[in-house]
Amino acid sequence: MHPKAIPAHNQFSEDISGMSDNKWVYLFSEGSESMRNLLGGKGAGSAEMTKAGMPVPPGFTITTEACLDYFANDKNEPEGLADQIQASLATIEKQTGRGFGNNSNPLLVSVRSGARASMPGMMDTVLNLGLNAETLQGLATRTGDDRFAWDSYRRFIQGYGSIVLGVESHQFEELITEHKLKLGKSGDTELTAEEWQSLTGDFKTLVKTETDMEFPDSPYEQLMGAVRAVFDSWYGKRAMDYRAANNLPHDWGTAVNVQTMVFGNMGANSGTGVAFTRDSITGEKVLFGEYLLNAQGEDVVAGVRTPEKIQTLQDIMPDVYDQFLTYANQLENHYKEMQDLEFTIESGELFMLQTRAGKRSPRAAVKIAVDMVGEGLIDKRTALERVEAEQVNAVLHPQVDPVADISPAATGLNASPGAASGQAIFTADEADELGRSGQAVILVRPETSPDDFHGMVASKAILTARGGATSHAAIVARQLGLPAVVGCEEIKVNLKDKSFQVGEITVNQGDLITVDGTTGNIILGEAPLIKGEITDDLETLLEWADSTRKLDVWANADTPEEALLARNNGATGIGLCRTEHMFREGDRLPIVQEMILAADEKGRQSSLDQLLPIQRSDFKGILKAMHGLPVIIRLLDPPLHEFLHSIHDIESDLDGLRAAGKHNALKEAERMLARARDLHEANPMLGLRGCRLGIVYPEVYEMQVRAIIESAIELKQDGVEAKPEIMIPLVGHINELLEVENRLRNTALTVQNEHGVEVSFKFGTMMEVPRACLTADEIAKQAEFFSFGTNDLTQTTYGISRDDAEGKFLLKYVEDGILPANPFQVLDNSGVGELMKIAVEKGRAARSDIEIGICGEHGGDPDSVHFCHELGLDYVSCSPYRVPVARIAASHAAIGKAPPADV
Amino acid sequence: MHPKAIPAHNQFSEDISGMSDNKWVYLFSEGSESMRNLLGGKGAGSAEMTKAGMPVPPGFTITTEACLDYFANDKNEPEGLADQIQASLATIEKQTGRGFGNNSNPLLVSVRSGARASMPGMMDTVLNLGLNAETLQGLATRTGDDRFAWDSYRRFIQGYGSIVLGVESHQFEELITEHKLKLGKSGDTELTAEEWQSLTGDFKTLVKTETDMEFPDSPYEQLMGAVRAVFDSWYGKRAMDYRAANNLPHDWGTAVNVQTMVFGNMGANSGTGVAFTRDSITGEKVLFGEYLLNAQGEDVVAGVRTPEKIQTLQDIMPDVYDQFLTYANQLENHYKEMQDLEFTIESGELFMLQTRAGKRSPRAAVKIAVDMVGEGLIDKRTALERVEAEQVNAVLHPQVDPVADISPAATGLNASPGAASGQAIFTADEADELGRSGQAVILVRPETSPDDFHGMVASKAILTARGGATSHAAIVARQLGLPAVVGCEEIKVNLKDKSFQVGEITVNQGDLITVDGTTGNIILGEAPLIKGEITDDLETLLEWADSTRKLDVWANADTPEEALLARNNGATGIGLCRTEHMFREGDRLPIVQEMILAADEKGRQSSLDQLLPIQRSDFKGILKAMHGLPVIIRLLDPPLHEFLHSIHDIESDLDGLRAAGKHNALKEAERMLARARDLHEANPMLGLRGCRLGIVYPEVYEMQVRAIIESAIELKQDGVEAKPEIMIPLVGHINELLEVENRLRNTALTVQNEHGVEVSFKFGTMMEVPRACLTADEIAKQAEFFSFGTNDLTQTTYGISRDDAEGKFLLKYVEDGILPANPFQVLDNSGVGELMKIAVEKGRAARSDIEIGICGEHGGDPDSVHFCHELGLDYVSCSPYRVPVARIAASHAAIGKAPPADV
Repeated sequence: MHPKAIPAHNQFSEDISGMSDNKWVYLFSEGSESMRNLLGGKGAGSAEMTKAGMPVPPGFTITTEACLDYFANDKNEPEGLADQIQASLATIEKQTGRGFGNNSNPLLVSVRSGARASMPGMMDTVLNLGLNAETLQGLATRTGDDRFAWDSYRRFIQGYGSIVLGVESHQFEELITEHKLKLGKSGDTELTAEEWQSLTGDFKTLVKTETDMEFPDSPYEQLMGAVRAVFDSWYGKRAMDYRAANNLPHDWGTAVNVQTMVFGNMGANSGTGVAFTRDSITGEKVLFGEYLLNAQGEDVVAGVRTPEKIQTLQDIMPDVYDQFLTYANQLENHYKEMQDLEFTIESGELFMLQTRAGKRSPRAAVKIAVDMVGEGLIDKRTALERVEAEQVNAVLHPQVDPVADISPAATGLNASPGAASGQAIFTADEADELGRSGQAVILVRPETSPDDFHGMVASKAILTARGGATSHAAIVARQLGLPAVVGCEEIKVNLKDKSFQVGEITVNQGDLITVDGTTGNIILGEAPLIKGEITDDLETLLEWADSTRKLDVWANADTPEEALLARNNGATGIGLCRTEHMFREGDRLPIVQEMILAADEKGRQSSLDQLLPIQRSDFKGILKAMHGLPVIIRLLDPPLHEFLHSIHDIESDLDGLRAAGKHNALKEAERMLARARDLHEANPMLGLRGCRLGIVYPEVYEMQVRAIIESAIELKQDGVEAKPEIMIPLVGHINELLEVENRLRNTALTVQNEHGVEVSFKFGTMMEVPRACLTADEIAKQAEFFSFGTNDLTQTTYGISRDDAEGKFLLKYVEDGILPANPFQVLDNSGVGELMKIAVEKGRAARSDIEIGICGEHGGDPDSVHFCHELGLDYVSCSPYRVPVARIAASHAAIGKAPPADV
Repeated sequence: MHPKAIPAHNQFSEDISGMSDNKWVYLFSEGSESMRNLLGGKGAGSAEMTKAGMPVPPGFTITTEACLDYFANDKNEPEGLADQIQASLATIEKQTGRGFGNNSNPLLVSVRSGARASMPGMMDTVLNLGLNAETLQGLATRTGDDRFAWDSYRRFIQGYGSIVLGVESHQFEELITEHKLKLGKSGDTELTAEEWQSLTGDFKTLVKTETDMEFPDSPYEQLMGAVRAVFDSWYGKRAMDYRAANNLPHDWGTAVNVQTMVFGNMGANSGTGVAFTRDSITGEKVLFGEYLLNAQGEDVVAGVRTPEKIQTLQDIMPDVYDQFLTYANQLENHYKEMQDLEFTIESGELFMLQTRAGKRSPRAAVKIAVDMVGEGLIDKRTALERVEAEQVNAVLHPQVDPVADISPAATGLNASPGAASGQAIFTADEADELGRSGQAVILVRPETSPDDFHGMVASKAILTARGGATSHAAIVARQLGLPAVVGCEEIKVNLKDKSFQVGEITVNQGDLITVDGTTGNIILGEAPLIKGEITDDLETLLEWADSTRKLDVWANADTPEEALLARNNGATGIGLCRTEHMFREGDRLPIVQEMILAADEKGRQSSLDQLLPIQRSDFKGILKAMHGLPVIIRLLDPPLHEFLHSIHDIESDLDGLRAAGKHNALKEAERMLARARDLHEANPMLGLRGCRLGIVYPEVYEMQVRAIIESAIELKQDGVEAKPEIMIPLVGHINELLEVENRLRNTALTVQNEHGVEVSFKFGTMMEVPRACLTADEIAKQAEFFSFGTNDLTQTTYGISRDDAEGKFLLKYVEDGILPANPFQVLDNSGVGELMKIAVEKGRAARSDIEIGICGEHGGDPDSVHFCHELGLDYVSCSPYRVPVARIAASHAAIGKAPPADV
């Protein structure tokens, strides 16, 4: 993240000054859902559950305002905070009958971060805070388990040492391993109380060595250190990365939750688990969760041990299960939203630790939203708001072809649907690098942690050997819409060699694999994939979206097949049909080359005569597929040399032809070489292309327009309503359009006269250079439609060639935060968007009914769709595959759902 | 000219309808100077002279409104025009005592076009109108000269036939030649009355054959035909071309002047001539003109015979000379402007035919303007208005080096000052084509006509074998500021072979020659030229200009020499000092290449350490030259591959090196090839250059800034005030500027701290991509100055690469009128200018004292200077040679002289 993106901390000073009598701390019993911005999601959830009478371990929340004040005052604790914490602790001491730092009956607490939105990048939970060599005696007495007490203490030192004091976690693990080796023991469970006790000494020495400070024994000091660590984690790298990736603001701050410890690891009738009120993968209305007996919560989330399905708890502790099910339903009904719950069972007693809106797979998001409307929980508008446009894209993700003959090498948990193939890559950094450079990579890890986030974002799919459906890898993958298979214990990941073993086979870094997150299958090599599909639920949601949106959604399609797909996906027009693709296909290319090599107009005309019937049939196909709907056909755009072999290739061939004595071929090659050199340009992007071609070689466009009008006439005679709109590319000056369009209108009239048939057509222009936008009033006098070609417009507005820049500096720009996003993916609202605004205003002022749309790649990007809605465009045109995404995004814009950037 | 540039004729209909009682015709005695728009320049001049009592042959003017009405009504004569013409003719008949169509004492008239401004492209004069087989008898009787009468008649048929009826002029000449051959006579003067009479028959037959119409015998029919022909010539190609080249509006229309004939060819005491009231070449206050005895006016202007200097008339006809001198002074004093006069002496009697502002050489324009202020005729502001900025440029035109050892091959009339070398080209079309393609050509013709205008514009100089200082070639060349030698009778032009003979030598098409319009010399081959100079008069004018202008004038200079030249020419700052030139010079290039080839920052740094002292001394030189004045230094801009050999060149070298066994050189070449390939870009214009380089390789800019600050410090210690302004190029997003500038400001501070010396410097940015302009408010928060790089800004605004476009389509665009001008020469006000406007408004809103200028080539173009004045820029920066031009243009803008386009 670029440092400039961090708000200057002292901007808060003014708001906060003189607020020393502020209330910085709220008991759970004092809070509510309406105070979410102040208490964070976790604090608000705990408060709501407490109010509802559920068994929540007593605790309190330090507010986000305290966090902001802390940063506004050079990381000094807010005045009064310490006193308020002590007062709240006193209340909890009363409620629990325990004492913080009391040796005989010690109050132990957990400390958790809790921002307004759930943020994986934030500080991990610190458990068992309040323990020291004295208070652990009280814990031992209370539980009657010395070993448990010392194990808890060493866990606390380990957790606090790594999370709060910054000692690297693996250093503690290495001490444990050493210790076990020395003792000749292999499992943690084999260690006695004394052996753990001896280890705590080593742990403290390690902390002293690494941090140059004694490990704090005072519970109060421990607590204040943890609170500061939570505050500091708000600007930690992981949190910054996460916020940057999710467009979350940096000025929210985080709350801190301090809560009485309950223990899931106090024996066989203790346990801990997480559960969603609905299936977060499919969206089905069933309790969906996992638990581990005799474990602390972190064990479930970290995916270190593979947990049990929540339903199995019904057999083991039926009362607890029923109680939990009741609370789960109660909470979902209360929030009218699928909940993600955390619970702990301490010695057979259920405690609710957290409730929050549950993350879900895109498919589940759609199903839950639609189901909840059916259940009367929410209205259609809320349902639309609950599904991000990008999630719709994920539903449409590719799948492994079900009819293909596939034998999976392994099967794991199907944690996030969709399938993808790519190179197996074993570190997040490498996945990040390769993925950004455009390669398809699959991140393979034993398990993932928030540190791997950047590598996950850049991957096509995730594969982990450990962890369950609620592990970090699974949650993040679903959120990103990436296929993921987790807990695939059949594979043995070897990070040192960057490889994994599956049976006899070794898969090395760079080998191709396929991850099928829908079935959980891992396939070696590249499996055949098929496109995603529109489910019935999605169809329903899309219909609701259509009834609200103002923008039409069209598609870019060059073939009848693509046009049909677009139409099936809900497109109501073709915003861009490129004709150059038609020039390149096999049998046509030689004719096109002959045309380019022709010495004069007559020579060109003879080639064009051959192309005419071919183009006519091209256009007939696509116009027929879209009968009754508009089809914008762009006349030939690319520089002609693109249709010839490259100078380098021809030069390379010459010697061979000469040696082989192939005189005719040699002559032809030399002819092409001469022409290719003649057409060579230093900057072809800014050269002889678009309408400039149409001016220098008018006969090419004339042929194309003849083909368009003739095909429309033939279709009309077959009863098909063709609505071609002829688009003249790269216009910068009104006179270019006049020159080309006047001639072509004439051609269109001539063809109609020849056949005695009138057909409908429009002429318009692509807005893709800044000058066209700046003089849109002049251009609109002639053009019946504008279509923003935002790919080229971005190139000229920035003065950046996408081809050259992405590898050489553009990705670095995005990485370093110099640009907020790649402007070729997300529309640059303040630069390119400003030009579009000027063009729309001037264009509509000159011709009020001018049809205006966008056909750049941005047409399918939800942020950009929002912007186009605000500009008042008539339509966005995108890839046929992204039409459903755009339909949802257009609806979101219309119903006033904030665009993703502001969520 | 593009047809769209012609206003639709019927746009006038409304203004004219119901005006059938309009006054379409004014006698000379009814008009005045204030009616110039209605009567045209010639009509108004004749009216003024008539009012002043000078001997003007009686006549009348048909108004420009009549012309516009004619076009507004599908080329039908205005209602009432015919009647008014007849009435006016009747008045003239009374004044002269002759009758139009009267056989015994016929009134003969001349018919001339006469627009608001003098326009060489308009219709030639028709003389002797009213003659036919009957009326010529009266002429014969009156003059007592049958031969004169028939000669006049054949001249009339010839003139009317070619000018009004469109028969090609050479067809008449061929008939004369044939006729003479048949008769065995060589000179026109040898032909008798009967022989001319017989020729008139052949002429009439020729007209019949070519036009399918009888030659009109009715004088009235002749007159109305001529009037229509004048009207039609307004939209003739020559006139359209002329107006396009001079930015004159097409909706003025032309007046028609009908005037009683007087004859300069009635014998030895008759004659005709033209004269300027001052020397139109030097500007000296002496009568400057020529006359021919026994000749008609056309003979002088056409340059067919070489005329006598006006002063020789004093000996021949002293009274006439004195009378003329009196009128000349009277007219100059009346108009307070140098006059161009036409006169005819008929049998010893002086007639004044025309007075108008005289065209003059640029040097004369400056001298006359300054002198007239001295004489109390005009004020300084008028003087400034009288000199076009481009004329100042012409004064500064190159001259043949006076100390060079030159032996001219021939000498002609020094008709327009300055000197140029180029290929001798013999047709206007070829000169046009080659000149536009960037070649230096010199148009060589026997004489020029308005049909040659396009070829003259495209030439570096003009050479003609015939004609005087007031011939077409001379007038046009002076106006265009082109060197010209005319009437160089030593050369024999052979149009068929495209060559000229001078003595024994043949100069063929394409051979290099030098034309020295200052001395009249023609030199074979390329003569050494020196730059033009600022004369004392020009110095005076420039001082007046400086006291009025708002815009500062800076210059673009890369070396101390250029900076000194700029300063001497009046520049008060350097707007663009390019540093890449410094990287390219001989001994530096290998170091720069080593830097580019370096594998890492350390390697680059070692090369940069070598470059540092070199750059420091570069900057010291230019900062010292401009002591006390600002110098904007642009940090490295071009893509790095420009400093390596081209891929093609290296590849070509490889085989040779391999064959020669030069292993080390081969290794080096392969290393460079690899890097060159790595740096290769499809569109380098839009690639890794400008500040993008500064972000990817920050150490390069750091070295440059260190060199700048160190040089300023050293200069300060020497008592020199250095004012560097550091310009970061190609910024499109504020974050690019932040990234680069923050780092460099740090460098600047570090260097100052190292030396314990503070120096003044600024940081700013070049505005050369549209996005920078659109987000100028954001950029101005950081940048202390903006400099519009309108070359690149034009490229990105249009999406046109200048290098690629000019040859391939841009010139065709300008030629076909698709673009009004080459936007790389004349600023595109409505596109690029609109972006500049946005940038100035947003920039000043964010930082009111931001320094804004322009450093593109446009900074020296007068139109563009006007636009920059209107935008409120602080300065324009141009080539050192164009600084005086810009000073005048800036003054013109400030005093409200309409920019050239509206003249």
